[in-house]
Amino acid sequence: MPADADRIDTIVRLCRARGLVYPSGEIYGGVRAAWDYGPLGVELKENVKRQWWKAVVHGRDDVVGLDSSVILPREVWAASGHAEEFVALLIQCTACHHRFPAADLVEEFRARTGEELDARALLALTCPDCGSRGRFTPPSLSSGMLATALGPDEADDSPYHLRPETVQGAFVNFHSVQATGRRRPPFGVGQIGKVFRNEVTPGDFLFRSREFELMELAYFVPPDQDEDWHRYWIDARTEWYTGLGVDRANLRHYPHPADQLAHYARRTVDVEYRFGFPGREWDELEGVVNRGDFDLDAHAERTGVDLSYYDRTAGSRYRPYVIGPSVGVGRAVLAFLLDAYTEEETPNPIGGVDRRIVLRLDRRLAPVKVGVLPVSRSADLAPQAAAVTAELRRSWNVEFDDSGAIGRRYRRQDEIGTPFCVTLDFDGLLDHTVTVRDRDSLGQERVSLDKLNDYLAFRLRGC
Amino acid sequence: MPADADRIDTIVRLCRARGLVYPSGEIYGGVRAAWDYGPLGVELKENVKRQWWKAVVHGRDDVVGLDSSVILPREVWAASGHAEEFVALLIQCTACHHRFPAADLVEEFRARTGEELDARALLALTCPDCGSRGRFTPPSLSSGMLATALGPDEADDSPYHLRPETVQGAFVNFHSVQATGRRRPPFGVGQIGKVFRNEVTPGDFLFRSREFELMELAYFVPPDQDEDWHRYWIDARTEWYTGLGVDRANLRHYPHPADQLAHYARRTVDVEYRFGFPGREWDELEGVVNRGDFDLDAHAERTGVDLSYYDRTAGSRYRPYVIGPSVGVGRAVLAFLLDAYTEEETPNPIGGVDRRIVLRLDRRLAPVKVGVLPVSRSADLAPQAAAVTAELRRSWNVEFDDSGAIGRRYRRQDEIGTPFCVTLDFDGLLDHTVTVRDRDSLGQERVSLDKLNDYLAFRLRGC
Repeated sequence: MPADADRIDTIVRLCRARGLVYPSGEIYGGVRAAWDYGPLGVELKENVKRQWWKAVVHGRDDVVGLDSSVILPREVWAASGHAEEFVALLIQCTACHHRFPAADLVEEFRARTGEELDARALLALTCPDCGSRGRFTPPSLSSGMLATALGPDEADDSPYHLRPETVQGAFVNFHSVQATGRRRPPFGVGQIGKVFRNEVTPGDFLFRSREFELMELAYFVPPDQDEDWHRYWIDARTEWYTGLGVDRANLRHYPHPADQLAHYARRTVDVEYRFGFPGREWDELEGVVNRGDFDLDAHAERTGVDLSYYDRTAGSRYRPYVIGPSVGVGRAVLAFLLDAYTEEETPNPIGGVDRRIVLRLDRRLAPVKVGVLPVSRSADLAPQAAAVTAELRRSWNVEFDDSGAIGRRYRRQDEIGTPFCVTLDFDGLLDHTVTVRDRDSLGQERVSLDKLNDYLAFRLRGC
Repeated sequence: MPADADRIDTIVRLCRARGLVYPSGEIYGGVRAAWDYGPLGVELKENVKRQWWKAVVHGRDDVVGLDSSVILPREVWAASGHAEEFVALLIQCTACHHRFPAADLVEEFRARTGEELDARALLALTCPDCGSRGRFTPPSLSSGMLATALGPDEADDSPYHLRPETVQGAFVNFHSVQATGRRRPPFGVGQIGKVFRNEVTPGDFLFRSREFELMELAYFVPPDQDEDWHRYWIDARTEWYTGLGVDRANLRHYPHPADQLAHYARRTVDVEYRFGFPGREWDELEGVVNRGDFDLDAHAERTGVDLSYYDRTAGSRYRPYVIGPSVGVGRAVLAFLLDAYTEEETPNPIGGVDRRIVLRLDRRLAPVKVGVLPVSRSADLAPQAAAVTAELRRSWNVEFDDSGAIGRRYRRQDEIGTPFCVTLDFDGLLDHTVTVRDRDSLGQERVSLDKLNDYLAFRLRGC
């Protein structure tokens, strides 16, 4: 594994070279707002989403899924508190016109000097970009939400916002989901979907962009059970990562100080990952928030709709509290990539050592499950190679590769984390066998053609 | 099956009652722009998307996936022609302030009188809404795209658009995908994602909304093969629907007249479905467009990037043509629901007939694969029922239901299309068996508990 400072760069380069992730709108100079997932990236990302859905929705009795809309009226965001609270305080350097979040400069000053910066001293700072001193404007507010308009009146106003989180959809649909699903707390509503945040400083690769996907659960509980369920979900979500191969030593829990909680939070604990961005060891991977009854209360008050639960057994009515684990798909993808990336040396059968790069991704996450590699482009091997590929494609994402030296092709499959390679050779034509190579152990097994599908189905169960 | 006029209403009611689809933002009066998919709806929709991906991407050697961003700069849409062409001409009644697409009034006049309407006569028409005569304003243009702004300058301008189609992502990434994937035409780029269209008159349930998902393929071919591949994809896409259970008699092909093609199209053939909206029998389900080299040409010209393919064997360079099949996920969901909806009478074992509603969805599309139904809530049955449910949940989306009469619970599972129900009774406790009921044949089989998983895995293969 390369030194910390290089790990991110190594992954960015690998993603680019292997077509996992491209900068969005690159031929137009790049959008800087988002990343496009290429052929392998989209498979990896969809696998991460599928595993989340399996663990959080399908695998549980008490959680159902939802897919609510991106666009909601400003009124929803007024009720949720986002219109007022989800904003950044910006100051601008009048020399270079660059804008900075005031909070970043305050934080940087505190880290450097151990002192707090007051508003007047802030404006007298040196611009980190152009070096001008004391040229900052007073702070102004910028919304963290993107606005748009619907219908033919678009010139008049922008009365809609693109959601910055999916979970509001679970709150405004609380009554429908609870009633049609005949659910009683504790029960949850899981959702995966696009969100948009007008980040002042997007960056750090997949870590912070303006357009990305969230995987979010709203888990509704009786108010007196909130702390137990909060602890439960912090642990359950941590175990989800380790169950998919992330080293526990690269995860830790960070409870937010009471004076730095989001406006809707009673308590927040982040699951942090050791991303190792320059100057920072740990960063938020997933937030697990105890939102109390803030959201249901706010929407009930705004709309006059009774968003509560009537417990027939107890004969009482209450407003459930919400435990909300929330993780960006891009951050999860990045954590899995960083944790899987390995450089290793293996003994070479003819002496010396081979260096190889291998993505030790859990099989369920690997973008390609099987590589099919005929030893040569010989016309004798081609029909069997095509038949094997077609057969395996019915069950898994398969890559066929017949170009170049077999060693190079193995290295390519190792680099993209393919758990199994099926090699076809001339001996196999005679005895109807192929070789299956294991990415991690490098073990090779001769498998008869008519058993290949079952062999792989067993090794790839749950994928 | 109810009469045509009622079919849509029946499906809308079923979707609402069973929690498949809710109006978005309902407690805030509804957005009218989008629909929210509830617990069963999101499963059905994801299954439709998965089957598309399996058929169009995973199942093929020549197609790779992509997930590109929703937000792209206005410049991309200027090049693609959408900024100029993807607009509606609106006229407004000055009496009631209602706006209408001019094209609709022209079309309605033509249908009623057989005559063309000139611009002056258009303004003299009677308002279909308030009945005022000759109060229309001259037509004005409204963009079909939603605009937004990124970064802290949002007050200044809205220089970005939310994409109205996903396929432009395949064009602007053409070079990256082709190079990192080492692809040569014919090859395709498949994508599923959210799009936004500022429809003047959203409506007809899932058929036309302002926010929805598209499943789109950009299939790049040598220019002299475009017509063959166009025919190929019209057939392949039609067979996808029939392969998933849609009656061929409810599908037909509609070639667009040459004078009504979209600005990027050389030829378009719609796969139409017999939706049966009031006053219309057939409507577009999927469009299969021969886009020629319009898009690659436009982006190459705008950016100066060479978007062409160099054929080493032939020693020549060309710009591929694009065949683009494109279907809205909501339209596909609606077609599958309409086609699967059945009302039928079955003989009752004690005489007479039972009426039942059954969604004969293909097993791969059914939102719930297995219903687990203990005959009673008896504490004797509960542990086994819980164990069976937990075991089956590891592989499939399962519904556990122990409330109410068993007949009512079967009817509920029939209505949501669940292919198999597993019933647990007291005899089964003694001999370790359960009953598996088949949705379509109504056949019941006694299956031993230790074989249940294999039994269902075989019946649900490919799900």
